[in-house]
Amino acid sequence: MAKLTLETAKRLLVVGEQKSKQMELSSNIAIVDHGGNLMAFHRMENARIAGIDISINKAWTSVSMQMPTENLVKAALPGGPSFGVNTTNNGRIVILGGGIPLLSAGDIVGGIGVSGGSSIQDIEIAKAIVTAFEIMSKKSGSFGIKARIGSMQQDG
Amino acid sequence: MAKLTLETAKRLLVVGEQKSKQMELSSNIAIVDHGGNLMAFHRMENARIAGIDISINKAWTSVSMQMPTENLVKAALPGGPSFGVNTTNNGRIVILGGGIPLLSAGDIVGGIGVSGGSSIQDIEIAKAIVTAFEIMSKKSGSFGIKARIGSMQQDG
Amino acid sequence: MAKLTLETAKRLLVVGEQKSKQMELSSNIAIVDHGGNLMAFHRMENARIAGIDISINKAWTSVSMQMPTENLVKAALPGGPSFGVNTTNNGRIVILGGGIPLLSAGDIVGGIGVSGGSSIQDIEIAKAIVTAFEIMSKKSGSFGIKARIGSMQQDG
Amino acid sequence: MAKLTLETAKRLLVVGEQKSKQMELSSNIAIVDHGGNLMAFHRMENARIAGIDISINKAWTSVSMQMPTENLVKAALPGGPSFGVNTTNNGRIVILGGGIPLLSAGDIVGGIGVSGGSSIQDIEIAKAIVTAFEIMSKKSGSFGIKARIGSMQQDG
Repeated sequence: MAKLTLETAKRLLVVGEQKSKQMELSSNIAIVDHGGNLMAFHRMENARIAGIDISINKAWTSVSMQMPTENLVKAALPGGPSFGVNTTNNGRIVILGGGIPLLSAGDIVGGIGVSGGSSIQDIEIAKAIVTAFEIMSKKSGSFGIKARIGSMQQDG
Repeated sequence: MAKLTLETAKRLLVVGEQKSKQMELSSNIAIVDHGGNLMAFHRMENARIAGIDISINKAWTSVSMQMPTENLVKAALPGGPSFGVNTTNNGRIVILGGGIPLLSAGDIVGGIGVSGGSSIQDIEIAKAIVTAFEIMSKKSGSFGIKARIGSMQQDG
Repeated sequence: MAKLTLETAKRLLVVGEQKSKQMELSSNIAIVDHGGNLMAFHRMENARIAGIDISINKAWTSVSMQMPTENLVKAALPGGPSFGVNTTNNGRIVILGGGIPLLSAGDIVGGIGVSGGSSIQDIEIAKAIVTAFEIMSKKSGSFGIKARIGSMQQDG
Repeated sequence: MAKLTLETAKRLLVVGEQKSKQMELSSNIAIVDHGGNLMAFHRMENARIAGIDISINKAWTSVSMQMPTENLVKAALPGGPSFGVNTTNNGRIVILGGGIPLLSAGDIVGGIGVSGGSSIQDIEIAKAIVTAFEIMSKKSGSFGIKARIGSMQQDG
């Protein structure tokens, strides 16, 4: 399995920060590895401090649940198939959008979590990071061949 | 950024206690600084002890989420954009009204949380404290000029 | 049993704050009732934020263990009769000096906790508060007669 | 009080990572603001995951206790004045060296925590970061004049 490096994580954080600035937001952005363990975290100026925990746990949820946290929004509603899931795991499962696993050739190699704006905005920033990761994976030797399979992007 | 002092916090607590008495209520009132750390807390005679935690966490939530906790009441309903937010941050996010950030010239310098009555009553007391803070800020040298911008109040 | 009021608690906090200033310290001071539940808390300017939790839990420990926390310092040493007590109760038992129960006629009516200086300094401030409480109890109607028994102080 | 920015935090993390590499170590490095809230965190390749929590809490301890965590090593020994302090604050107080507050003109503006090697090694990396911060503070407009007072460094 390809391994997410700190160098890659830093570049992804920069992508998220730039996207966030473009949207005139201040975000907390977290990246965890495939074990769900924190690799890197940045809090932008004036980003709300509740988002520290939320972004880290969105990233963790995306890896630990093997799905975008967005998928849990409806599933965790009263009557939904995952109602109550957010009170398991000592409250680490976050059912707000903005956490997305990072895939390399179908393997989960890590996850990102964004918190700062509305869930819709957080998702938009998270998706920008995922797209950047997919492009980086294709160009990178370490992620190269296998990542092509998982990626929907075309080289120019 | 202007700094909230213990002297100011004490005066704000007195305002909240007086308002609470006028309404024939017994309140827990908490004040945190802009980092969310507790500065001062008073529990009035016969105020319910569940409110200790609730008021402290309302104050924390108002600072950490950068909004009155009242804003979360509808947002955290099933189907709302923040459904599930109250199970993040180890349960410190309170989605009941009565927590309001204290602003000085647009900067959050702290937050207050009130718990003792209904949410509507808690909000009324919290707002009385905020109004007192705005008046004090205008009169005080340390908050003076910048606070005029953030305040909606007119000098006599 | 005589009941500790918020008014009394506030006056005790002022005593602690003045003593602390005399010693050129910045303290966190907490007062709990006889149920161990927080009644009042003040953090002085620049007092360390670790002391929020420590002072509140010193006060709680003094009531819940029915003794000054100072008594636990030696007892909780390896080989001592209370070794390990500070890891019970979700870590709320504090084995540092500076928490003292408040007695009225032999009954525990509450407790105080001080955190900000060395344990020796915290104890000195806590004792100043206890002394003030004993004097107040003697003069006060509500604590009057019974408190005379528990108090070592003489009216002038 | 001068405010620590994410840009500054990132540059400090790079300094810590370079120092760590020179020493052939893999470190977890955390930076918190003066309220103890996480600003930035990086885990280097193969750094041990226990160090995530340890580094974040070392940084928090340095700010919340207003001293290098190194100072607690002896103080928290059985019989020492701070024995048991590491079981307060829900276990967030770390009594291992490697957490140091960042000062600007005598004010604590944040703190760093390093975990990855021995305490002696962690302290060495942390000190390299502090030195870099002091140099940056002198050169920076935002920290400039006030920082000169707090700094022991001479301009060339």
